[in-house]
Amino acid sequence: MVKDWKAKASAKRQAILDSIPPQWRIESVPDAKEQKDVTGAYIQQFLSQKEIEITETDAVGIAKQTASGVWSAVEVAEAFCHRASLAHQLVSCLHETFFDAAIDDAKALDVYLAEHKKPMGPLHGVPVSLKDQFHVKNVETTMGYVGWIDTFEGVKEDARQGTFESEMVRELRSLGAILYCKTSVPHTLMSGETVNNIIGYTWNPKNRNLCSGGSSGGEGALIALKGSPVGFGTDIGGSIRIPAAFNGLFGIRPSVGRLPYEGMANSMDGQISVQSVVGPMGTTAGAVKLVVRSLLSQSPWLYDPVVVDMPWRDAEEQAVNDLVNASAGKGRLSFGLMKGDGVVNPEPPVLRAVQLVAAALEKAGHKIIEWKPPSHKSILDAAFKTWVFDGGVDVHKAFSLSGETPSPQLTMTYGVEPRQEATASQIAATNVELRRLRKQYMDYWNGTESQTETGRPVDGVIGPVAPYPAARPLQYKYYGFSVWVNALDYTSVVVPVTLADMSVDKYEEGYSPISDADRQVFENYDAEIYHGAHVGVQIVGRRLQEEKMLAIAEYVGGLLGK
Amino acid sequence: MVKDWKAKASAKRQAILDSIPPQWRIESVPDAKEQKDVTGAYIQQFLSQKEIEITETDAVGIAKQTASGVWSAVEVAEAFCHRASLAHQLVSCLHETFFDAAIDDAKALDVYLAEHKKPMGPLHGVPVSLKDQFHVKNVETTMGYVGWIDTFEGVKEDARQGTFESEMVRELRSLGAILYCKTSVPHTLMSGETVNNIIGYTWNPKNRNLCSGGSSGGEGALIALKGSPVGFGTDIGGSIRIPAAFNGLFGIRPSVGRLPYEGMANSMDGQISVQSVVGPMGTTAGAVKLVVRSLLSQSPWLYDPVVVDMPWRDAEEQAVNDLVNASAGKGRLSFGLMKGDGVVNPEPPVLRAVQLVAAALEKAGHKIIEWKPPSHKSILDAAFKTWVFDGGVDVHKAFSLSGETPSPQLTMTYGVEPRQEATASQIAATNVELRRLRKQYMDYWNGTESQTETGRPVDGVIGPVAPYPAARPLQYKYYGFSVWVNALDYTSVVVPVTLADMSVDKYEEGYSPISDADRQVFENYDAEIYHGAHVGVQIVGRRLQEEKMLAIAEYVGGLLGK
Repeated sequence: MVKDWKAKASAKRQAILDSIPPQWRIESVPDAKEQKDVTGAYIQQFLSQKEIEITETDAVGIAKQTASGVWSAVEVAEAFCHRASLAHQLVSCLHETFFDAAIDDAKALDVYLAEHKKPMGPLHGVPVSLKDQFHVKNVETTMGYVGWIDTFEGVKEDARQGTFESEMVRELRSLGAILYCKTSVPHTLMSGETVNNIIGYTWNPKNRNLCSGGSSGGEGALIALKGSPVGFGTDIGGSIRIPAAFNGLFGIRPSVGRLPYEGMANSMDGQISVQSVVGPMGTTAGAVKLVVRSLLSQSPWLYDPVVVDMPWRDAEEQAVNDLVNASAGKGRLSFGLMKGDGVVNPEPPVLRAVQLVAAALEKAGHKIIEWKPPSHKSILDAAFKTWVFDGGVDVHKAFSLSGETPSPQLTMTYGVEPRQEATASQIAATNVELRRLRKQYMDYWNGTESQTETGRPVDGVIGPVAPYPAARPLQYKYYGFSVWVNALDYTSVVVPVTLADMSVDKYEEGYSPISDADRQVFENYDAEIYHGAHVGVQIVGRRLQEEKMLAIAEYVGGLLGK
Repeated sequence: MVKDWKAKASAKRQAILDSIPPQWRIESVPDAKEQKDVTGAYIQQFLSQKEIEITETDAVGIAKQTASGVWSAVEVAEAFCHRASLAHQLVSCLHETFFDAAIDDAKALDVYLAEHKKPMGPLHGVPVSLKDQFHVKNVETTMGYVGWIDTFEGVKEDARQGTFESEMVRELRSLGAILYCKTSVPHTLMSGETVNNIIGYTWNPKNRNLCSGGSSGGEGALIALKGSPVGFGTDIGGSIRIPAAFNGLFGIRPSVGRLPYEGMANSMDGQISVQSVVGPMGTTAGAVKLVVRSLLSQSPWLYDPVVVDMPWRDAEEQAVNDLVNASAGKGRLSFGLMKGDGVVNPEPPVLRAVQLVAAALEKAGHKIIEWKPPSHKSILDAAFKTWVFDGGVDVHKAFSLSGETPSPQLTMTYGVEPRQEATASQIAATNVELRRLRKQYMDYWNGTESQTETGRPVDGVIGPVAPYPAARPLQYKYYGFSVWVNALDYTSVVVPVTLADMSVDKYEEGYSPISDADRQVFENYDAEIYHGAHVGVQIVGRRLQEEKMLAIAEYVGGLLGK
């Protein structure tokens, strides 16, 4: 059995590599010691000038060029297929490639444009990468499980195998997007690192000693290497925001029911107390906004029963823009500044990044208040219960399909075999507790109106996504900074802020950890290892405030020169 | 113990009666044999002309009179307190009265109007009755449980007892509504009849041999007797729509997250697979719309974490009005006509009512198509599982607080003691199944576009609320006609249509039941008993279409002369 799953995994791993056309292969991939950072000049050496120009243009820019026919959809698709192939060889970020289908689709788009003199949609010719939870016809979905190879979500000879497409895939196609690859995930999806027995470990392109984040770590790494301009991940505890922060990207964790999750593979599907959501990350805030707005133009609420009947609201976006464009002193925003959560304080580079954002906003005339919310510990205690409601039955069932060994990143949470399941009464009690905590937090948020001098409660909360700039293998241990957002179902955008800098990022003399978890984080810190790593920050808005928070992300990105 | 709970229940029952001022007591209440129908002329005999005028005006009309000061809030409040007192004596529909507080509030409103020359809000001086799940300060909430007497939701010496108010209560107060009574429910809330050991049985005012429906049966009966112009019930399986239909009222079952449930008592709280919602019923469609629209003006999404950030959308209402006001043949609506659900066919008066609505719409130029949806049986099987996820642990715990005997209406579902609870995996599987069924149904709904000739899928589905005009005690056995709406989280409005008529409402010769459940319904039918009972029909819209469906309810009510 052991031999069997290892052989299967290895064959699949090799098949992914073999799918890369010979002319795109890197003859000898250096190891991390030799070449820590494979972004920028390093990866550019394998590309033509035109390919570099195309792949280093953001999704908004690409859409303009392809819609006007300045660039053909085919040349754009080819450039990204090439660069994604390089990215995968450097950091193991892909699970599936379907370049031929992508080129065929691109050809059809070029024909369409020539015939109709207008683009197929707002994403005409824009390559969009997808986490390996999306089903795409003629492409496998394994989610990193060896036992899912040659099945449909673990089921053999299911009629949907090879034919079924997730709802968002249908919508992206009708918007004109080019789909060409699916990206790596930690098996189970429940880790801040991306590791599984098929592709191995997805490394951080900026520093290949560090992880790319997770669970949408393949997306993070691929977009960081500009092998994709924008792509979709999912987030049940930080899985969009962590890779966005670790890779210098913009991203959004929308609230449940804003974007269509319908027809995607998942772990522990049907656990609805704290739900996973799907959302984009990209190289610019504009790219992220473009895909969200485009998807909402497809009325996803008519095709996904979880999606709320809520089109893109221009007025919500405009309200932010009106405020920040008002003459000085006239209109202003206000933000809570969260330097820690009462359980853990972030490591120095992350603390500095959070403060940089606050300072930039303050300098621009906005109001910053200290964020003193109700107990985050209570929120986290309730949220973490939902991760193990089924005692690991679902994930262990998936492991047992092949007999593969779970990665230690996963056994940390799920053990080596299923544990006792929660009962209906226990689940209901957790749901009641979550609702109570959400109510308490919203009351606190409302109450900030008295401190902001804007006549409104704070417009967002600036805080860390993770305690680390990027974690090292097996060192991602504290999820509190991301999970509170999922527990409360808030909208959160990630903004890239700075790079870790060993010369300034130091714990204050005599720092005394505030908890065991904080001690672990404190002891984990190594300024030298993190030096040069990306540090991103999240700005958290209330539930279903995607338009507002994207406008804020764009504005803050501008303030920071991103 | 038995003696103890019986004494407690009896004391509480007596206290409710004693709270009625002596001058409002009916000396001798006739029994049902003597006086079957206590509406109209019967109850009017105890009221002054002015009181009759006030209480027979709908909420929209009352709001006009009180806002302009033509009627004082005090005289309106007194008239409804009086009429509610009479109603309770006739059909046992109240759980709590707080007339003195109501009169005090009304006095304050009159002062406010005199001082400010404008009403406090859109519900200035409008009496609003509340199901006994709402918490109101200085008023008890028992939800029909003897064990909840002198507690807060069964907990003794809880600080909230007597002080806490539900979120919607706060909003209603700030809108200017007058709160004055709470209405009866079946203990557990899980029945289409309203019965508990405190108030006994709430009878149908139109026919005191029949039930008033449930679980918001007290509301239904009170509003039918015009002891309230509009009031709030809740609905997890039909509990707003059933009493609305059985009492000749308009009502709406909004989708989850449209109106604030925050801070209300409930059964099996925390079961979120198929959730209970709160919504109004009233004597006119306008009354129902008035309160929904008014509540949404209070931004309930800032105070209830379950509520969706969605203000009242005028455009959705206007779109319906534009269509129906268009010149003939220009604009039209279209509807699915559901005569049965494949499991049960409704009894003849209900079938006739459904056909009457379809015929009226067809005559007005709208399109009716046959509704041939995916299996309702599968939907119902999944939904009913959610009712017993906890094996009855919660409701039996509530019964055991006092040792009271559960009514047989409840032991039908929950047995006499708790059964095995569902596990997390089983609950998750049901959630996945529910999502699959919702997706399948929405696809079917989308597909009707090809049949409607309007360029859109159907605007609503016309169907029965229950198989019966109104059930007899212990005879409410089939919930399929209401529960599918909860399972799919659709918006449903109830419209009063007709009265059962023994001269025309007959099963067709040689009718052959299509299932065991249908046989039970068929054998239950007795044209003579139902003669004269109200028959209402529901018109079901998609999720979160409250504005559209209320506009349709108003329009259809107009077509039917209601």
